[in-house]
Amino acid sequence: MSDPHLIVLFGATGDLARRKLLPGILHLLRSRLAADSRIVAVSMDDLDDDGFRRFAQDACREFGRPVPEEEWDDFAPKLHYVNVADGPARLAEVAGRLEEELGGAPRRLHYLSVPPRAAVDVVRTLDEAGLVERSRIIMEKPFGTDLESARALNARIHEVFDEDQIFRIDHFLGKEAALNILAFRFANGLFEPIWNRTFIDHVQIDVPETLSVSGRAGFYEGTGAFKDMVVTHLFQILAFMAMEPPTSLDSSSISEEKNKVFRSMLPLRPSDVVRGQYQGYREEEGVSHDSETETFVALRAQIDNWRWAGVPFYLRTGKQMAQGARIISIAFREPPKSMFPAGSGVGLSGPDHLTFDLADSSRLSLSFYGKRPGPGLRLDKLSMQFAMQDTARAGEVLEAYERLILDAMKGERTLFTTAEGIERLWEVSQPLLDDPPPVRPYPVGTWGPNAVHQLIAPRAWRLPFERTWRDPNESGQ
Amino acid sequence: MSDPHLIVLFGATGDLARRKLLPGILHLLRSRLAADSRIVAVSMDDLDDDGFRRFAQDACREFGRPVPEEEWDDFAPKLHYVNVADGPARLAEVAGRLEEELGGAPRRLHYLSVPPRAAVDVVRTLDEAGLVERSRIIMEKPFGTDLESARALNARIHEVFDEDQIFRIDHFLGKEAALNILAFRFANGLFEPIWNRTFIDHVQIDVPETLSVSGRAGFYEGTGAFKDMVVTHLFQILAFMAMEPPTSLDSSSISEEKNKVFRSMLPLRPSDVVRGQYQGYREEEGVSHDSETETFVALRAQIDNWRWAGVPFYLRTGKQMAQGARIISIAFREPPKSMFPAGSGVGLSGPDHLTFDLADSSRLSLSFYGKRPGPGLRLDKLSMQFAMQDTARAGEVLEAYERLILDAMKGERTLFTTAEGIERLWEVSQPLLDDPPPVRPYPVGTWGPNAVHQLIAPRAWRLPFERTWRDPNESGQ
Repeated sequence: MSDPHLIVLFGATGDLARRKLLPGILHLLRSRLAADSRIVAVSMDDLDDDGFRRFAQDACREFGRPVPEEEWDDFAPKLHYVNVADGPARLAEVAGRLEEELGGAPRRLHYLSVPPRAAVDVVRTLDEAGLVERSRIIMEKPFGTDLESARALNARIHEVFDEDQIFRIDHFLGKEAALNILAFRFANGLFEPIWNRTFIDHVQIDVPETLSVSGRAGFYEGTGAFKDMVVTHLFQILAFMAMEPPTSLDSSSISEEKNKVFRSMLPLRPSDVVRGQYQGYREEEGVSHDSETETFVALRAQIDNWRWAGVPFYLRTGKQMAQGARIISIAFREPPKSMFPAGSGVGLSGPDHLTFDLADSSRLSLSFYGKRPGPGLRLDKLSMQFAMQDTARAGEVLEAYERLILDAMKGERTLFTTAEGIERLWEVSQPLLDDPPPVRPYPVGTWGPNAVHQLIAPRAWRLPFERTWRDPNESGQ
Repeated sequence: MSDPHLIVLFGATGDLARRKLLPGILHLLRSRLAADSRIVAVSMDDLDDDGFRRFAQDACREFGRPVPEEEWDDFAPKLHYVNVADGPARLAEVAGRLEEELGGAPRRLHYLSVPPRAAVDVVRTLDEAGLVERSRIIMEKPFGTDLESARALNARIHEVFDEDQIFRIDHFLGKEAALNILAFRFANGLFEPIWNRTFIDHVQIDVPETLSVSGRAGFYEGTGAFKDMVVTHLFQILAFMAMEPPTSLDSSSISEEKNKVFRSMLPLRPSDVVRGQYQGYREEEGVSHDSETETFVALRAQIDNWRWAGVPFYLRTGKQMAQGARIISIAFREPPKSMFPAGSGVGLSGPDHLTFDLADSSRLSLSFYGKRPGPGLRLDKLSMQFAMQDTARAGEVLEAYERLILDAMKGERTLFTTAEGIERLWEVSQPLLDDPPPVRPYPVGTWGPNAVHQLIAPRAWRLPFERTWRDPNESGQ
């Protein structure tokens, strides 16, 4: 259980607060994973405590778990509302009153569910309200939009908060998936020895989405797939796959190893990047008719250290694609083939490989060549599968945001990004941002523009040519 | 399809001929896997052609696949009988007549389904009957009972037949299983790099049987588990697991690599062997009341080459044990554990390992540590499974003896043992035969005498503590 907290939630009437944060905080308190706490909700809306409590109750009813009436009556008085227009003094006054209810000097958690340009103002408000001590702040992406803006943003925040108070949230790689990767790599004698350039040919991190951008085209138009997905999400996955073994699984050891991966990444060459835009994007509301914003990006990243030099990491993500998936696929170097008779089929379906499927419940599969049963020697690519089913009691299962808020309350930062890491990623990305390759159109429901195949040739994308998961009731192959 | 053959079957009225060889030959001819052939059945029984045909028909009806009457009528005239008492001239005469039916100079296959002491007489008979040219002979185990007898036997046979005419049969490791192991090891980039002493802690080859020896106690009493199972069967499996990559999968390349493994094996020290005898064995019919014959044997074998030095290979087999199985299990060296928090459970269930299950349809499983889903970090040993189901058309599926007879007809010797190999194995075994450790009693239905645990300590036998196969309909763990 975490310590008692004063939680200050900026952007409290926004979409994220309504869908995830308010239901999440309620659940953490109800389930006693978080100790008794008070919440100050802050936004620009003209509400009083009762008005906000009604808003929160509606939000929790719509998006949260069902809650008995008496538990809600317990929770509601812990919610208070401050209009940001009333200034820091008003926030200080409400916070002070609630902290006394909690015994005087509780920990503070400030959740900045606000756009990046507003974050600096919020930080100033917190400073003026005297709410910096004993506090941690959670920030939402994007953490800047290029190296210069990221540095400026971090510098402004560091004027008030120390780096170890700042939790830059990345909900994409759930804690389960991240720890699954680390446990798999480091708790077994089989995998770590071959987890390097001597034995691995390449790695694919593939996150196609079927969604369009409609509804958020206004935001998306100024961001694009690279800034929206690659820097914050896909590069984080890459770090967990590529990192050296940390000395322990505590978050500072892991952060340090992730940052080492980022430091060893070579700057992205524009020629190693394919940008795409789905046909029809320019007709979306809020999108310019000659928009050059990419809704798809694929790239070849390089980690120039002793473990990975020469091993390409292929990343791909986009909107309106043929199929949604979140896979990481490690392809092993091909074996010599001359021992097998001609026509045996060895290597015919690409190299043997290991796949992490991060969608929903994590899955793991190992594809290898084996002999097709029967006379002769014909090799087929076979596959072993494992599903990490959730065996925890249902009450213990946390949603991504619940888990991340609780992690921040406990000071556990495995899934949060450091200023150093994020600045380095923008630095790596700068050549691409300075000189982006042209945007190529692709039809809705496809796997991106054709150039994506040239990018990876003579290799091939694992998707869509392979099913990463097979119903266990199906037969052998 | 093989060439047309004259098949001379010695021991034609024996149990093996009745159960396996006659039904098997019939099936090979009917299914046209073997070309048109003639069979000369030889034994000491007083029969004529018709008498033997009736015997063969009964055998095929009882133990073979169902055969339409007209197909039997086709087959029967191809069967001829010679009483061994009538001498080589009679055999030569019948063989000559049948060879003319086949066009004059067919290939010859002599199947010696006779005890070792009779094998030399049969070889002399074949010599005197002029049936050595164009011929191959299949011999049944045991190929001697120690180094001296094996050398003597091989020398006598080599007086008449060249080594490349001799097929020493080992039906135990089916061709599918052997080729599965080789394909798995050598067609993938993942496994071969870690297939050595740097990454493998030990290997277990475990073949417990639930059968008693009743019915064949007379034979068994003079043989015992070591000679009956280890030299011919378990050491052959060991060779497929331990061999260097052959330059090709043809049988001479494979034989050479197997022999290299045998050459590098260290002589078996009696202190590395546990012999056991199930309680009640001395009361079996045909067994001496103070018998020292082992019905159980477990041992630690060592292969002193650059790949395997220091990696123990633990072998175990016995009668009347708790459970029947045929598994090979490769345990990887344990990872460092200090990165994981105390109580995480890493390593708690032994090292991660790979298991080949050779029983019936081959299975493969990989056991590894992964994170138990839910809060905290608790590692469980999880398992991925693959069943090599037989997808070949039913008509193509051959039983072990059918396949081996067909292999011998085609000169394909992957599953047959060379004189050099067998003599080397007896040489390796000689210290144990000279100075066998005492036989320890074990209760029926157990895993052998207690000393078997000391033999492997501080490691543990994979069986019975682990299920090697899980119903795919069961849930995750």
